[in-house]
Amino acid sequence: MNLSETEARSLLGAERVARLATADEGGRPHLVPVTFAADGDRVYIAIDHKPKTTTTGLKRLHNIERNPNVSLLADHYAEDWTALWWVRADGQASIISDSAEVAGPIELLAARYPQYRDHRPDGPVIAITVTRWSSWSAS
Amino acid sequence: MNLSETEARSLLGAERVARLATADEGGRPHLVPVTFAADGDRVYIAIDHKPKTTTTGLKRLHNIERNPNVSLLADHYAEDWTALWWVRADGQASIISDSAEVAGPIELLAARYPQYRDHRPDGPVIAITVTRWSSWSAS
Repeated sequence: MNLSETEARSLLGAERVARLATADEGGRPHLVPVTFAADGDRVYIAIDHKPKTTTTGLKRLHNIERNPNVSLLADHYAEDWTALWWVRADGQASIISDSAEVAGPIELLAARYPQYRDHRPDGPVIAITVTRWSSWSAS
Repeated sequence: MNLSETEARSLLGAERVARLATADEGGRPHLVPVTFAADGDRVYIAIDHKPKTTTTGLKRLHNIERNPNVSLLADHYAEDWTALWWVRADGQASIISDSAEVAGPIELLAARYPQYRDHRPDGPVIAITVTRWSSWSAS
């Protein structure tokens, strides 16, 4: 069954990890797991200090610069399929680089993840404006 | 650190759930959690008997028909970030509808998931030919 937008926001907001899909200018989707902080219809994702590789670290930014459409998904899997659920936030992303503008989002991220308190991200932040919440629960 | 292609295949093959990103003709990504069965560089995903809604059930098929590029991700999250890893399979998807052709893939899916043994999927199967394996592990 579909959940309400309020339930969808609440379920996503409590999750620790989600997956971010972007697409390049040729329509090829790209997918990475992300930590995030949600604030109403805005979702923030930090870029790590040290991207694992140049390709991995920058591909999502490269895509967003050329195509702002993104999709973010959190889901719950269980061997009992009556316990399955997922929440998806579709929207437009932008990249915030200005240090004054990233301060608020990084505060939200640091409040959720101790790793960000110990070591504040200093890179840009991806800011998603969610235009559609979708969700489904098996029961 | 990056893992070998063999390790990536093995990690993905053992996972119970992954996330499938497709993109529509306008380059808008779409994201859903999926059960799957991997066989070398082929990955199969069944379509449930009863799509949750018409939109949800058909959007991935609609996209694949117009744009075969897909990305499939499995990842492991833990509060201890030294335990994180992910595996991504990028490739081209096609939709198999012929009942003789879907038999093998559905056999593989039924071998992995008891729910498919109790109730065999009778819809089409998404077949992904993986052209690139990517993976990363924090330790």
